[in-house]
Amino acid sequence: MSSYKLTYFNVTALGEPIRFLLSYLGQEFEDYRLPQDQWPSTKPKTPFGKLPILEIDGKEVHQSTAISRYLGKEAELAGSDNWEALQIDMAVDAFHDLRLAAVGYFFETDPATKEKKREPLLNVTVPFYLSKFDQLAQENNGYLANGKLSWGDIYFIACSSLINHIIEYDMFEQYENLRRLRDNVYSIPQIKNWLETRPKTPF
Amino acid sequence: MSSYKLTYFNVTALGEPIRFLLSYLGQEFEDYRLPQDQWPSTKPKTPFGKLPILEIDGKEVHQSTAISRYLGKEAELAGSDNWEALQIDMAVDAFHDLRLAAVGYFFETDPATKEKKREPLLNVTVPFYLSKFDQLAQENNGYLANGKLSWGDIYFIACSSLINHIIEYDMFEQYENLRRLRDNVYSIPQIKNWLETRPKTPF
Repeated sequence: MSSYKLTYFNVTALGEPIRFLLSYLGQEFEDYRLPQDQWPSTKPKTPFGKLPILEIDGKEVHQSTAISRYLGKEAELAGSDNWEALQIDMAVDAFHDLRLAAVGYFFETDPATKEKKREPLLNVTVPFYLSKFDQLAQENNGYLANGKLSWGDIYFIACSSLINHIIEYDMFEQYENLRRLRDNVYSIPQIKNWLETRPKTPF
Repeated sequence: MSSYKLTYFNVTALGEPIRFLLSYLGQEFEDYRLPQDQWPSTKPKTPFGKLPILEIDGKEVHQSTAISRYLGKEAELAGSDNWEALQIDMAVDAFHDLRLAAVGYFFETDPATKEKKREPLLNVTVPFYLSKFDQLAQENNGYLANGKLSWGDIYFIACSSLINHIIEYDMFEQYENLRRLRDNVYSIPQIKNWLETRPKTPF
């Protein structure tokens, strides 16, 4: 069996889909959470100045989505053909468009600019994407693609706590098909166990 | 044979990797370039309010990277196993980090903020990424991953004219391994033919 060490910060965000997927695989892994004060000295040693990094048998790989797709394939959660894989990738990349809009607001350091970004994010972008994803989940039996569980569902749900933290309300509240999607992921025994045992973090 | 219709704007950017890959596949396609003034009325009819969209036998798919990965698989340019596919995905997602930094500057509408973004983009972010990609190309025989051509190389090179347009100089000038990568892609007969016959656009 391979050995896995995840290096990320002590938050969910882009590390959590990897933690969910390794849990789903029943794979033990070292869940290393880098203290913030060690980031400046660690950053230059990373492949592209970013986390998460996953070491698989000592070999470093990076990029949250690329790693999650890889683990999704290992878990047979990546579609049964190229067309199905495309449907999953489309949903995940659309989710990133939402995520990038949200973090662009969240990490904005200029207070006036941040304020200016707030209204369109909360009143236009977020409802637009969530209603689209809700529709996808409705059309796909409570999943985002192909009418069945994929690594894309796990990615979306694992990362949703970041979105909730940024928008400061529960994104699932008004969307019953997204709640169904969340319940589908959260009720997987290995994921349920991970949720019960994972470290508590602000987001 | 399937029928393909690409809908994008009259620029290279996120549509060009798809055009390159369809050309590589020897696949005829309708290269529909939406006039800017028709975008407001077209936008609500798209899956997620964005272009490019590719219609494959009348079925609409979206997201430039997801489509390119799909076409890459059809072209057998997506790695020979999950590990190789991961190396390609890592390189492409790292390229997107660079691209997003560049377009974040390019599309900034506030002149003072744009000016503030300029120096770190040109003097820190761009050289950092380009030197990393140059190193990847050096280690991989003039490609970004696995020592051989992949859809990731085609994506990177097709999209590089957008980066050049934004940074206002030739990103290949100082990086001999990136020039080698570009030459490897540009010398593929189908790509060469596309470059010679494609519409001339500002970027």
